[in-house]
Amino acid sequence: MNANAEQADRRYSVVSVDDHVVEPPNVFQDRLPAKLRERGPRVVSTDDADVWEIDGTRHPITGLSAMAGRSFEEYTPKALRFVEMRPGCHDAAQRLIDMDADGVDAELLFGTLAGLAGGTFIDLAAQDAELAMACMAAYNDWLASEWCAVDQARLVPQCILPLWDLQAAAIELERCIGIGHKAALLPGLPHVFDLPAFASDAWVPLLSTCEEAGVPIALHIGGSIGRKQAAETLGALGPDAGVPAETLVASAPLTNYGVLANVVFSGVPVRYPKLKIVSVESGIGWIGYFLERMDWTYERHRFWTHSQLTEPPSHYFRRQIYGTFLVDDTGIDTIERIGTRNVMWESDYPHTDTTWPKSRELIKTHLGHLAPEILHDVIAGNAVRVYSLET
Amino acid sequence: MNANAEQADRRYSVVSVDDHVVEPPNVFQDRLPAKLRERGPRVVSTDDADVWEIDGTRHPITGLSAMAGRSFEEYTPKALRFVEMRPGCHDAAQRLIDMDADGVDAELLFGTLAGLAGGTFIDLAAQDAELAMACMAAYNDWLASEWCAVDQARLVPQCILPLWDLQAAAIELERCIGIGHKAALLPGLPHVFDLPAFASDAWVPLLSTCEEAGVPIALHIGGSIGRKQAAETLGALGPDAGVPAETLVASAPLTNYGVLANVVFSGVPVRYPKLKIVSVESGIGWIGYFLERMDWTYERHRFWTHSQLTEPPSHYFRRQIYGTFLVDDTGIDTIERIGTRNVMWESDYPHTDTTWPKSRELIKTHLGHLAPEILHDVIAGNAVRVYSLET
Repeated sequence: MNANAEQADRRYSVVSVDDHVVEPPNVFQDRLPAKLRERGPRVVSTDDADVWEIDGTRHPITGLSAMAGRSFEEYTPKALRFVEMRPGCHDAAQRLIDMDADGVDAELLFGTLAGLAGGTFIDLAAQDAELAMACMAAYNDWLASEWCAVDQARLVPQCILPLWDLQAAAIELERCIGIGHKAALLPGLPHVFDLPAFASDAWVPLLSTCEEAGVPIALHIGGSIGRKQAAETLGALGPDAGVPAETLVASAPLTNYGVLANVVFSGVPVRYPKLKIVSVESGIGWIGYFLERMDWTYERHRFWTHSQLTEPPSHYFRRQIYGTFLVDDTGIDTIERIGTRNVMWESDYPHTDTTWPKSRELIKTHLGHLAPEILHDVIAGNAVRVYSLET
Repeated sequence: MNANAEQADRRYSVVSVDDHVVEPPNVFQDRLPAKLRERGPRVVSTDDADVWEIDGTRHPITGLSAMAGRSFEEYTPKALRFVEMRPGCHDAAQRLIDMDADGVDAELLFGTLAGLAGGTFIDLAAQDAELAMACMAAYNDWLASEWCAVDQARLVPQCILPLWDLQAAAIELERCIGIGHKAALLPGLPHVFDLPAFASDAWVPLLSTCEEAGVPIALHIGGSIGRKQAAETLGALGPDAGVPAETLVASAPLTNYGVLANVVFSGVPVRYPKLKIVSVESGIGWIGYFLERMDWTYERHRFWTHSQLTEPPSHYFRRQIYGTFLVDDTGIDTIERIGTRNVMWESDYPHTDTTWPKSRELIKTHLGHLAPEILHDVIAGNAVRVYSLET
């Protein structure tokens, strides 16, 4: 990085790499071709909530997706109406006001109905690929050209892709890069969607495009879980098993350990040495441990497995993988084990975990002891570099 | 603890809380009643391996269960013959010689054919509960009265239980305590075996017996995975999904995060405040993070979930939960976050992870900087207390 770029990234002093839009009702109906509009996502009002309906199937918006501004006592999983949500959930101008109140300069954005890696539409493609593709394009267009257009420097779009056709996904990615998207959202475990494993040649068009364009892939926790697959994937820990809800909530970040191991041992960093890979909302306090564990595994098992790796896993992690966190004292205590350039702060607005409106206060309390250069990297500089925010 | 007991536990200077026996061929045929012997586990020799056969179903012994003494280059998952294994795998006198060479005073023992929580026989019970119960009793008898009898102070048995009948399990536990067993092996996620959730009253007879007798429950990683359930439980990460084997190996310890969360949020420590709970082979370097994460979850979600907990999860962990590790620099760096009385060392002989024959050397290198009292607790004292080794 040259001196100008170092200087330039100082424009951002706090960047959150994981926040969510709650798609407003017009996203799809404004953009779908006439012949698909009837089957496309629309909001219907039931007796107690506003609910998305896609081709006859209903998708309520869980309250846990839109709790910013509520006290913990008011948290609820009950499906909500838009008017029950803080306007910043779905209105970009209001979001900027909330960001100002919180001292956050920029946000990297994920969807709600769309899923954390487009899973809702990947599921939909099994029954209607044309509609699913049109929904993805509508979401990507709306996010970049309408929502984030309100302030392109502060609201940063990330695209979802038609992964059931990886050639088409590469083309849609290039289109999205052209309209300002800064990252590609992928499921951490593609096989959960019956997609090829990351080791497959089928991924070359898409991952090479990401690598060459310098566009990171963002693997959000839960991103492998389409709505249809939720029961199956969470089976061993799901509510039907008599498992308390807090088990799932507390466990969610750590589910990405398997995602990280899978990406690394599948040889993704070997094959795409410049591809940037972000493990989103997974926390960082376990990563020091897991790098040790992956290296230990590599040392002992690489012979019989005929590993493609030529270096221990931690080498690839430090070169091109990133973890994100909200408040994570263990992670900060062990940051040298992870890499001070490999961690990025996030706010998770408007989910239940969000630091809003106390982000600055929490940063001061939990990160204030870091050396200024490291602090800047963690809360802004690393994100500016990873997502190329100023290019 | 009184001064005498403090003194007494110095008899042990290195205790490993996780090691494995490979059951020799006579275990079941020597002990099953005549009418069950024909269907009971027997070893048959195939062209290239010795294989257990139970009522017509074959269970090979994966090489990865018996690699002690091999170089990493020789590691193999290929099913083995007994003569290909280091004798200490299946012969108690030879095990003691290996322990002497490694400087290990005592070992807490798990099975191989039996599964890490008796899963093989829990599965078997669905088709033949009488045979399954007899196999469990035979295993428990053999382990305590034959294998560990070679040196009761150094070879410490842990029992498997007929969990499909939790009243019967409590009775078998009392019998096992009577013959010297020091812990009860349970699956971390009972619903994987279609057993009641830990929150259910059905567990009261067994868990109360453990609590009153001061006998810990040991939840070994992988213990929820019976042979039939392996594919289902590992589905999202399994080999059929094109996932590299190292992903599963590296990930295995961390699978217990959900086990810990489930035990805590199910209210087990609230209901059984003196029950000791051991998370076995899960490593400890992620636990500091996870305690923070569970407390954060409790703070935010306890209202709508109507949590039974009256204190944050970390309170219960420090009071009655323990983690075990082999080599874990991150865990040792963060030991104060976990609790110096909450971690125990293990050797995992004869599995691929084993520290044998370098245990003393690895302890010196990785733990040698700890204060002497803390070092003693971690490599012996905590285990002596948790498993009541000298009572």
